[in-house]
Amino acid sequence: MKTIDLNCDMGEGFGVYSLGDDPAMLEIVTSANIACGFHAGDPLVMTQTLENAKARGVGCGAHPSFMDLWGFGRRPILGQSPAEIEKQLIYQIGALQALAHAQGMRLGHVKTHGSLGNMANEDIDLARAVARAIKAVDPNYIFVVMPGLPTEKAGEEAGLRLAREIYADRAYAANGNLASRKLPGAVLHDAEAAAERILGILESGEVLAIDGTRIPVRADTVCVHGDTADAVAMARAVKRRLDDAGYAVEPMAEWL
Amino acid sequence: MKTIDLNCDMGEGFGVYSLGDDPAMLEIVTSANIACGFHAGDPLVMTQTLENAKARGVGCGAHPSFMDLWGFGRRPILGQSPAEIEKQLIYQIGALQALAHAQGMRLGHVKTHGSLGNMANEDIDLARAVARAIKAVDPNYIFVVMPGLPTEKAGEEAGLRLAREIYADRAYAANGNLASRKLPGAVLHDAEAAAERILGILESGEVLAIDGTRIPVRADTVCVHGDTADAVAMARAVKRRLDDAGYAVEPMAEWL
Amino acid sequence: MKTIDLNCDMGEGFGVYSLGDDPAMLEIVTSANIACGFHAGDPLVMTQTLENAKARGVGCGAHPSFMDLWGFGRRPILGQSPAEIEKQLIYQIGALQALAHAQGMRLGHVKTHGSLGNMANEDIDLARAVARAIKAVDPNYIFVVMPGLPTEKAGEEAGLRLAREIYADRAYAANGNLASRKLPGAVLHDAEAAAERILGILESGEVLAIDGTRIPVRADTVCVHGDTADAVAMARAVKRRLDDAGYAVEPMAEWL
Amino acid sequence: MKTIDLNCDMGEGFGVYSLGDDPAMLEIVTSANIACGFHAGDPLVMTQTLENAKARGVGCGAHPSFMDLWGFGRRPILGQSPAEIEKQLIYQIGALQALAHAQGMRLGHVKTHGSLGNMANEDIDLARAVARAIKAVDPNYIFVVMPGLPTEKAGEEAGLRLAREIYADRAYAANGNLASRKLPGAVLHDAEAAAERILGILESGEVLAIDGTRIPVRADTVCVHGDTADAVAMARAVKRRLDDAGYAVEPMAEWL
Repeated sequence: MKTIDLNCDMGEGFGVYSLGDDPAMLEIVTSANIACGFHAGDPLVMTQTLENAKARGVGCGAHPSFMDLWGFGRRPILGQSPAEIEKQLIYQIGALQALAHAQGMRLGHVKTHGSLGNMANEDIDLARAVARAIKAVDPNYIFVVMPGLPTEKAGEEAGLRLAREIYADRAYAANGNLASRKLPGAVLHDAEAAAERILGILESGEVLAIDGTRIPVRADTVCVHGDTADAVAMARAVKRRLDDAGYAVEPMAEWL
Repeated sequence: MKTIDLNCDMGEGFGVYSLGDDPAMLEIVTSANIACGFHAGDPLVMTQTLENAKARGVGCGAHPSFMDLWGFGRRPILGQSPAEIEKQLIYQIGALQALAHAQGMRLGHVKTHGSLGNMANEDIDLARAVARAIKAVDPNYIFVVMPGLPTEKAGEEAGLRLAREIYADRAYAANGNLASRKLPGAVLHDAEAAAERILGILESGEVLAIDGTRIPVRADTVCVHGDTADAVAMARAVKRRLDDAGYAVEPMAEWL
Repeated sequence: MKTIDLNCDMGEGFGVYSLGDDPAMLEIVTSANIACGFHAGDPLVMTQTLENAKARGVGCGAHPSFMDLWGFGRRPILGQSPAEIEKQLIYQIGALQALAHAQGMRLGHVKTHGSLGNMANEDIDLARAVARAIKAVDPNYIFVVMPGLPTEKAGEEAGLRLAREIYADRAYAANGNLASRKLPGAVLHDAEAAAERILGILESGEVLAIDGTRIPVRADTVCVHGDTADAVAMARAVKRRLDDAGYAVEPMAEWL
Repeated sequence: MKTIDLNCDMGEGFGVYSLGDDPAMLEIVTSANIACGFHAGDPLVMTQTLENAKARGVGCGAHPSFMDLWGFGRRPILGQSPAEIEKQLIYQIGALQALAHAQGMRLGHVKTHGSLGNMANEDIDLARAVARAIKAVDPNYIFVVMPGLPTEKAGEEAGLRLAREIYADRAYAANGNLASRKLPGAVLHDAEAAAERILGILESGEVLAIDGTRIPVRADTVCVHGDTADAVAMARAVKRRLDDAGYAVEPMAEWL
């Protein structure tokens, strides 16, 4: 039987603000990427998200970012060396790790957020800094990477456990990275079509880029989003399609 | 031979800003209380401070605070429950712990900063929240407390290792807490007089409050400051006086 | 014909976050209190809110706060002198004033937010600092005050135009300030009852405090909230009740 | 008699932090570029800086930036449209304008800070957004621009008064922008040589770029820095050299 993980960003509120329908997503996904206070999240939101995930049997990981609450970590912030970014990641992962520990929980994985994630998928020096940060906090953490890109290579070099990830709602560029959100068709909205596409990728081991290029991919986890009602519907469709196709959908840290 | 620790707040810069003469103080003190990013400090400053302390054989601990960069953690921020503050402390201690771990170092103690510290010394519920936070991250960490006040009581209840602390440059209120900085004479400026006073407190087991009350104190560590040239001079005077009086001045985590 | 204003806090998002149903409230109220970036709001949210209010003929005013995004300005932050708070208010009002000016708009009023507002209603020195800040930016701005409390007195002393305000959804303490949200019954939830109560206050010139005390009040504006679906329904009920009772509901800056 | 202005960034502290020797620089320069709270500065620092400048007869202008306290506005933050940056500038200029107004003062100029300034000198759309922001707040404000670059062009198009600026301590790239700080020789340290160079630029109407290119420049104001003891010495040398050469060194807003 084939096994797969479904992951989703969570805990992206801050103070009085909330974002996304975390309770709905916790019924669907198997791994939660929890914001660590730099692009979203605060000690209370983080704790609540950990508790909610635990109650649903969902695995938890850190979702660190550039320090950019206003821009939600989506803005490329240049002028920072990989070594400087490494320290920012250790800080964030360590903060969430301690909050998890206080709940009697262990984190299982790390997935970088937003612009930091995009940049690490284009820049091997930055990808290596991410890998070093993860390893420094706990060498058993799984590094969520994109197949064929610098993050995968850096993770392999570091000897980390890897979760190769594909996105349910995003089109791909020819180099295997996500296509820019600004391009037409870059974000998928049809839940059933997205679910079907994901199954196709898993079965074929290939993803079709936005320009028609066939990119070989190996996938351990599928990223779904929960920040709109449509997104929740898509996550449900993906989950159902995977169930129907006979996949065991299980938290990555339990089987990778 | 009697043993004592000298502690100082450090790593209180942020970005381009720096504060205090950390290099000078690292030549004098034996324990550094490192800011964790909420009232001061950032991942780079924290890392640099850890490295510098390690190079000088100075023990490191966390110096968490209210989230208040603008007010440097000195402003009482009300409207937060002890449980909420507990999570903020775990976040900060965990972040520094991970940065220390990444340098191959271990933290030894936790000392709360500014208004949070003052409030915990007046409020047993808050003091217990601090103790819970420390214990949740690592039950081996030493809790730096003020003798006779709620922090000491909470630390004892929690079964934590305690470092009872006295201040070299601050006068005391009759209840054993620090006298408000706003009172005349609340901050001592004469280095030799302060050094002499500290020795007197250690020898007599008593501190004279600003109103003349005699307060019994037991002290494991002396807090000195390094944010002005005068402060550095005072720290040197205290150190010299303790050396002359035959005290072994050693990092608290090595002997407590 | 009697005239009254309906005011509501707006523009309380930040970056990707939004709060409350501003579009719905802009169909109901006549004055918008716009967050200025300290407890909520940012230059983009502020501009959008100004534009939306202008399109609906809703008057705009500044809604400054303590610098406390995480606590949404609801936490009492002590340790700040009135003169220091005055400068924070000038900064915020000036920022919104310039954004309004850039849209060809003029602000009409200033209403303080959250804990700052509560504290100014208990402390004449702080209330005077608020009045000075308003006067310093533009002496024609209306100061939104609570009748019988220090803000009203400070506004009168300063010779500012005043809008005396009552709250649709909040119970009152015996001193005429809002009852603490923590008390049972402090927040009203029944839309029709709240609407009826507001009309009663306006007609009788008295509000019944939570302990039964009768407090004389004169009201120029009624504060309604829009952060929940219930709140919007209550605002609609209040507006309808005022319309039915023959009140002209008009922006305060047009008639006060 | 030839007239020139000397400008310096000031008020770049935040809370307990200070940066640079503002009192020393206020004895030397004629225009102060005051940080507005986004890369540095806060309402109290801004007010104090305005007061100090006023006492010394130094003209004041706004020094707005990207919202980046941690990076001191020196990091390029991408992913923001010119229209979005325009609103951020209006916010900042408006905030300082109101604080100045509260002191009975008027601002005279606007100079962008750090990465924002560099980017505007390379991007005409961004330069136009800066010009629009200035004009929206007060069309009488002087726009400090670099001769030959997009800021000068955008300022001319907008019909703003311009102050063309040269830097005392920085080498130039062939396109007329500042050479990257990372290049050897990009920052000048010899006070007398820098003073001599500035006089040569003013007399010849040309600056020699780091690669030998001769760039025609017209200069109304010379930027000096005050963040190190060396910088203050250089500012003094430049001022003395200009005095000796018969220049009237006067606040830009008084004669431009």
